[in-house]
Amino acid sequence: MKSADSIRLGFDELKVFCEHVFAAFGFSEEDSRTVTDVLLAADLAGITSHGVQRLVRYYKEINELGYVDMKSTPEIVRETPVSAVMDAHNGMGQVVSVKAMNIAIAKAKKSGIGMVPVRNSNHFGIAGYYARMAVERGLIGVAMTNSEAIMVPTFGKRAMIGTNPIAFAVPAEPIPFVFDAATTVVPRGKLEVYAKKDGEIPNGWAVDENGRPCTDAVRVLKNIIGKSGGGILPLGGAGEVTAGYKGYGFGMVCEIMTAILSGGTTSEKVYRTPSGSGIAHFFMAIDPALFGDAREQSRRLSAFMAALRESSRADGAERIYVHGEKEEIARREVIERGVPVQAKTWEEMCEIASLTGTGDYLPSFALLSCCL
Amino acid sequence: MKSADSIRLGFDELKVFCEHVFAAFGFSEEDSRTVTDVLLAADLAGITSHGVQRLVRYYKEINELGYVDMKSTPEIVRETPVSAVMDAHNGMGQVVSVKAMNIAIAKAKKSGIGMVPVRNSNHFGIAGYYARMAVERGLIGVAMTNSEAIMVPTFGKRAMIGTNPIAFAVPAEPIPFVFDAATTVVPRGKLEVYAKKDGEIPNGWAVDENGRPCTDAVRVLKNIIGKSGGGILPLGGAGEVTAGYKGYGFGMVCEIMTAILSGGTTSEKVYRTPSGSGIAHFFMAIDPALFGDAREQSRRLSAFMAALRESSRADGAERIYVHGEKEEIARREVIERGVPVQAKTWEEMCEIASLTGTGDYLPSFALLSCCL
Repeated sequence: MKSADSIRLGFDELKVFCEHVFAAFGFSEEDSRTVTDVLLAADLAGITSHGVQRLVRYYKEINELGYVDMKSTPEIVRETPVSAVMDAHNGMGQVVSVKAMNIAIAKAKKSGIGMVPVRNSNHFGIAGYYARMAVERGLIGVAMTNSEAIMVPTFGKRAMIGTNPIAFAVPAEPIPFVFDAATTVVPRGKLEVYAKKDGEIPNGWAVDENGRPCTDAVRVLKNIIGKSGGGILPLGGAGEVTAGYKGYGFGMVCEIMTAILSGGTTSEKVYRTPSGSGIAHFFMAIDPALFGDAREQSRRLSAFMAALRESSRADGAERIYVHGEKEEIARREVIERGVPVQAKTWEEMCEIASLTGTGDYLPSFALLSCCL
Repeated sequence: MKSADSIRLGFDELKVFCEHVFAAFGFSEEDSRTVTDVLLAADLAGITSHGVQRLVRYYKEINELGYVDMKSTPEIVRETPVSAVMDAHNGMGQVVSVKAMNIAIAKAKKSGIGMVPVRNSNHFGIAGYYARMAVERGLIGVAMTNSEAIMVPTFGKRAMIGTNPIAFAVPAEPIPFVFDAATTVVPRGKLEVYAKKDGEIPNGWAVDENGRPCTDAVRVLKNIIGKSGGGILPLGGAGEVTAGYKGYGFGMVCEIMTAILSGGTTSEKVYRTPSGSGIAHFFMAIDPALFGDAREQSRRLSAFMAALRESSRADGAERIYVHGEKEEIARREVIERGVPVQAKTWEEMCEIASLTGTGDYLPSFALLSCCL
């Protein structure tokens, strides 16, 4: 397999394999389906950093280190007609989050809005998945999560805030509006990609251990892993000239809605306890019918999105995208041509298959590109 | 007055003057107080671009052009226990918005949350004012507005979205968390400041009429005024490298919550009708008690804000700010030393005083800095 840069796996086959792997980890059939669905939603959306390539990480965290308590049941510790607070008791992020978003959706269907902050959870995959769950029920969806600190606040040199993504999805045609963005300039995965190339990252992405702008991906990653200072900059970059304090502010909004409202752990303390990571989430669903005819709103948003797509392009630009469109393009390609995975990921999958006795379900693959 | 760069006016005197000016425009005593309060809140927060220097603009728009209908009454066109939709009927933005936020607050006190989108309104001043209103009642406050299009979407060359600020305020000690940010890199006012200096703006702020990065403030402003293409970039800058599509996405979130939910006008059509600007707002108040003890949440947020302030500073940085802190510093200085206004603004104030017969209330001033 050393000769292959990356291969493609049939989506349906890959899904069956992942479901069997998670079942072998000890998850129920239903939970295995849920975790697989969220995981592969990332691959479908072209966000491979959050997709099946994380399988080995889940294997380690769940089976080797016991970071996630598979036997725990999330608990509603407080509830009103428009809200619930959930304690995940260190359960699997995806399982907990689907339950929490379903509660938000049920409350929105009944009361117009449902807000569910969650504490003591774990990585939940891509935020956009949960926001989309609301859209599938005709609602506006919001999902956020904090994470291990990686964002350095403006004028600081120590990572204090997570990548803290905010996702926001709204019904529209032909595809919904789906915005899903880390409030850092880039997620950690992007640095890893550059580190594997020539190691030079664009200015404005990161700072070194002294809080100075740094374009050396390897150095920044080493500092992050060693917790020796520095990290990724908030959206808007370093200092105040390009308004990095705004990305820092959106990161704080995420921190407040997740960790503060849930009574959970703020990002700078995430991963410090041996009994779980302490990640906190926030889910919200809003019924657009609160504000008038929902179809009319969708029609008007669709018209605005069309106007954006069709507005004049910058010199040299091929097209103007609206949020959710690139993911839709990726989805079609993945369904048609298969999920692209790196050779390394395939090797990890084979190893996990062997360790969990799921080799019979390993998907067949097609070579995508070769280099000697 | 040509010799003075800027002068300082006593805050209380300035307040009395503005109240009399707005009363002379034809506003009721109560509405005059409201408009003055919002206007001067900007000066108090150090955001002079949105403060008393806009008096002349309001004079023109209200008295000369008749853009704002002072006799209109905002109408609730739809209502639920957690929401209301308001049609401002082209009323004064500040008056309408204080009423709308008060409705959101009343609903939050009763139902835990109140959401009020508003259509057919006008400029409302600084978004942070309304978010703070909720904090004063112990609630979380959110305020947004769309505006005349000035943001060029990623890969576009035509302004399609407003500066679309999002404000978010949360109770904390010793000062609340108050985030209030345009989703463009900078507001238009910053370009005007640079145009008056050497005209060179930092890279990443704006694009020219061909959608190409442009550092010529005068050219960008001329294009904006002439609607000949180009404009200000979303937070994150040009293209995808520094994630400008994220600022574009936050601008869209604002557009959806304001114009789409209210049944109002999207930014690219704002200002195109002769019967008002058609600006749309969104207000939300959330009772933190929905999620647990509100004082405990405030205590935990305050501790996190303190940890941020006290975290290690970047080499050469003097301090780390948390959102709301710079405004608090400005407020103390303004209360103590007076409101700084440019000589040109003072001249405009004198003219307005003469035109409205409010000369007796003109504040006394102290010269702040002189040149020849």
